[in-house]
Formats: sequence, structure tokens, C-alpha cells
Amino acid sequence: MKSVSENGAFGGEQGVYSHASDVCGCDMTFAVYLPPQAKAAKVPVLWYLSGLTCTHENAMTKAGAQAWASEEGIALVFPDTSPRGKGIADDPAYDLGQGAGFYVNATESPWVPHFRMWDYIVHELPALVFGAFPLDRERQGITGHSMGGHGALTIAMTHPETYGSVSAISPIANPTASDWGRKQFAAYLGPDQAKWRAHDATVLMEERGYPGPVLIDQGAKDQFLNLLRPEALIAAAAARRQPVQFRLIDGYYHSYFYVSSVMEDHVRFHAARLAEA
Amino acid sequence: MKSVSENGAFGGEQGVYSHASDVCGCDMTFAVYLPPQAKAAKVPVLWYLSGLTCTHENAMTKAGAQAWASEEGIALVFPDTSPRGKGIADDPAYDLGQGAGFYVNATESPWVPHFRMWDYIVHELPALVFGAFPLDRERQGITGHSMGGHGALTIAMTHPETYGSVSAISPIANPTASDWGRKQFAAYLGPDQAKWRAHDATVLMEERGYPGPVLIDQGAKDQFLNLLRPEALIAAAAARRQPVQFRLIDGYYHSYFYVSSVMEDHVRFHAARLAEA
Repeated sequence: MKSVSENGAFGGEQGVYSHASDVCGCDMTFAVYLPPQAKAAKVPVLWYLSGLTCTHENAMTKAGAQAWASEEGIALVFPDTSPRGKGIADDPAYDLGQGAGFYVNATESPWVPHFRMWDYIVHELPALVFGAFPLDRERQGITGHSMGGHGALTIAMTHPETYGSVSAISPIANPTASDWGRKQFAAYLGPDQAKWRAHDATVLMEERGYPGPVLIDQGAKDQFLNLLRPEALIAAAAARRQPVQFRLIDGYYHSYFYVSSVMEDHVRFHAARLAEA
Repeated sequence: MKSVSENGAFGGEQGVYSHASDVCGCDMTFAVYLPPQAKAAKVPVLWYLSGLTCTHENAMTKAGAQAWASEEGIALVFPDTSPRGKGIADDPAYDLGQGAGFYVNATESPWVPHFRMWDYIVHELPALVFGAFPLDRERQGITGHSMGGHGALTIAMTHPETYGSVSAISPIANPTASDWGRKQFAAYLGPDQAKWRAHDATVLMEERGYPGPVLIDQGAKDQFLNLLRPEALIAAAAARRQPVQFRLIDGYYHSYFYVSSVMEDHVRFHAARLAEA
């Protein structure tokens, strides 16, 4: 692991690091915010998964999360959204290939050698950051925006023993029924749609739910509402009487202006949940 | 004036606009954040001037100011830092020409036809925004970062009747004695150094001061401390017993991670001062 940059921020430190990923077969970059409390003891950690076209950088620079993380004494980890670089498969479309890993392990050519973001987020990067930083492995939450909200929800519902809290902002909520999902799952996972279901938050909500309250925020003016399909996820949550807070907020679009507007609530939600853990 | 984009943010609205500037002789872009309180009444306004290489966008997306402006009911205006475009003079260096207007009215060739950022910030843009938005002309504060801190301090000390509050983050504090200043003033204002003095915050502090408290923040690890020269400004303030709060804060560099870390204090400082106006 190599330090790319370190900057003081809200009494703590915002670092950017790169490392050679075995899982993705390339160098990967990620960011960690350590709040001031991390100087004295291990702190809880909130994983933030980003959306299409994003790197580790967007949320780190635009979401304002460090202000609240510093107050709450919670660390933030911002991974990249896909493997990257020359010699790694890509597609001219913004929503497939580099910058669009969709948090799955690809099984299909040409994606299979590098596009293994599920294993990267769930296994490899945690092993690295828990070894390198004063983070409490027993207190992990996960959230994300858009494609990252999809990743947060599917990962948390699959591994609730690991993630003690989950939330999502404008998530891709039902990808097996959306052009943000069907195209990518066909490419990464192949034509057998039964294999797609493990990566659809609405399907997972129908089949298993999550052992704790789930916070989901969505801007009512979001340009991509028809692709995100929050109504399917909420219907599934309501049907199983899943504890959930769903907010469809007027006046907000899909951008980081919206993400930053609700970020305080998400950081405080995770901090409160993880404090009970 | 033309709307470029409008986005909900913290209950208010973050807009980006462009207009044909007579003063600069080109199209100029700026951003305005209106807090939710602006729906009911005119609100105070805080001008935020950006630093070298910046546009209207950096502080708008990275500084986190909207969160606090929404709480305090204060609008934010983010102007660009220079005229821009084809046919407008420029220099290959990052610190001269486009992106580096230094908040002066150029008198020298080739800059004189367009580089009039002093008049743009003090006269033309206020006339436009007070006509277009529910902003209270009697309650204006001004702040900025780096070159923008220089602009905020020099403009406020020259026009204290207009700006009821002033602060600066990592300002270029003594440009007539710095390579961030001497080069640019020679280019824009010519070789007569007597003309440079009206644009040096330390000189203005020695000669006139400001009729109210001034808040100045500076990161102690700032890579550019030798160019910024805060010690000269503070010495001048102390010598005249100017009410001032100067904070040299350990652990912080020159970046927006630092700006965002102190932004809450600056927004609240201006809001409190303008509430007394």
C-alpha cells in the first residue's frame, strides 16, 4: 500500500492510497478518512460505494461527509467503482466497464479476469484497511449513491453479520428490471437471469430482508427515477414489514448537491446504529 | 442572464448562471446558493472569492458551505476568478492570466481590455444579482481562499460601507512582497509599485484597517506559507489594534480539505455579523 496524498480535514486526516489488488489484477486507489477520535482508539467505519463514472474521489471531495464523520468519530472508506487501466476490458458506454463495476464478480469474457468488485469490497479491501488503520472490524456500516446504493444494499443483505448498518442514497433498487442492470448483468454474469437475482436489492428484500432498520433517500426530481425503481424496493420492504425509513424528498435531483444535502443524516444514522453494536 | 443549471441543495437551490459581462468584455459564469429562507424574504449574502486556477465551481462543489448557509439563512455567491475564452489574453503560467485575475483592474497591455475583476466583483456582478435574486443589499459579507482571500480583504477594506463583514482563508496577505503578487501586479498594473499598494491587504491594514472584527484562518502545514505571508498581515493588524481573530491551525494544508474544515466557522461568523447590521 502506497500513500498518494494525506490532508488534514476536520481535525482528522483524509488520505488517498493505492495498492496492487490481487482480486482485480491491477493497481486500485481508495480513500480513507480518519476522524480525530482514531488517534486514541479504534473507530467504527462507514463504507461509501460510489456510482457510475465515479472514482474514490467524488464523494471524498463533494459529499461533505467528513464534517459529520469527525463529529461522530466514525471513519469513512471510499473505494473505486471498478478496475482501471490499459489492458483491462472497457466499453465506450459510460455505464459498462471501467467506472461501472456494479459490485459483482464477472463470470463472462472479456470481464472475468479483472471485474471482481464484489470480492474486492467484501474481502480484499477490508483485509487491507483493517490491517493498516485503527478501524473496528466489529462496527462496520455501508452506504452508497446510485450504483453504489445498489452495492451497499446487496452486500449488506448478503452479509448482515458483517455490516451492522445499511443505508442508500438514490440507489439502483431493482436492476433486474432496469436498463441500469439488465445490460450490465448480461455482460458480467451472462444470460442466465437466475444468476442476476443475488444482485438485485428488491429481490433480496423479498427473499431475506435485513436484520435492522434500513434508511433509503431519494430525490423526487431525480432525472433517473425510472431507472432506479425505488418503488419496487419499498413495496418489497413494506410487504415483509421490514423496518425501513424511505424518504422521497421534493426539490432534489441525482447529483452530489443532493447527496451532500442528506449526508449528515446518513452518517448520524450509521453512527447511532454502530454505537449499539 | 442565462441559467446553466439549478439543483436542490439543503432545502434551498444551487444555481449556476452565465451572462454577458460589459466590464470583462466576455461571457462570465457564476453560482448562487439561495437558502430556504430566501423563499420568504430577502436574505444576507456572503461573497466567496476563489483562488488561483479556480472557477465558480471549486468552492460550490467542495467547500461544503451550503450546509451552514442553509442553517443560517444566508445566500452564497461564487464568482469566477478571471475573464476567459478565446481571444482573451492568457499566459502559460497557472498564476497569470485566465484563472488568475487577482481582483484588480488591469491598466497594461495585453490585459487591459478584459482583466477588470475589481470592477466586476464590486460593481457589475452585484448589480446583476441584486436585481435577479432575493438578496439584501444592506447585508453583504465577503470571504475567499488564497488569491480570493486577498480579494476579499482588499475589497472589504476599500469599501467597508458595502461589506459589513470580512474574513479570509489562507489569503495572499502581502502580495507586494511575494512572488504571488509582484509578478502579477507588474503585468496587470505596470512597473510603478505605488499603484500596487491599493491591492495589498497588509498595506491597507497599516493604512486604514477595517471597522469590525476580521477572521483569518491559515493552515500551519500550508505548502505556500512563504508566498502567503500571513505574519505580515497579522503584525500590521496587531500594530493598529485591529479587532482580529487569526488562527494558525496545525495539521492543515492549502487544499479544500482545509477550506471545508473551517467553512462552518466562516459562514457563522458572517451570519452573526450581518445579523447585527
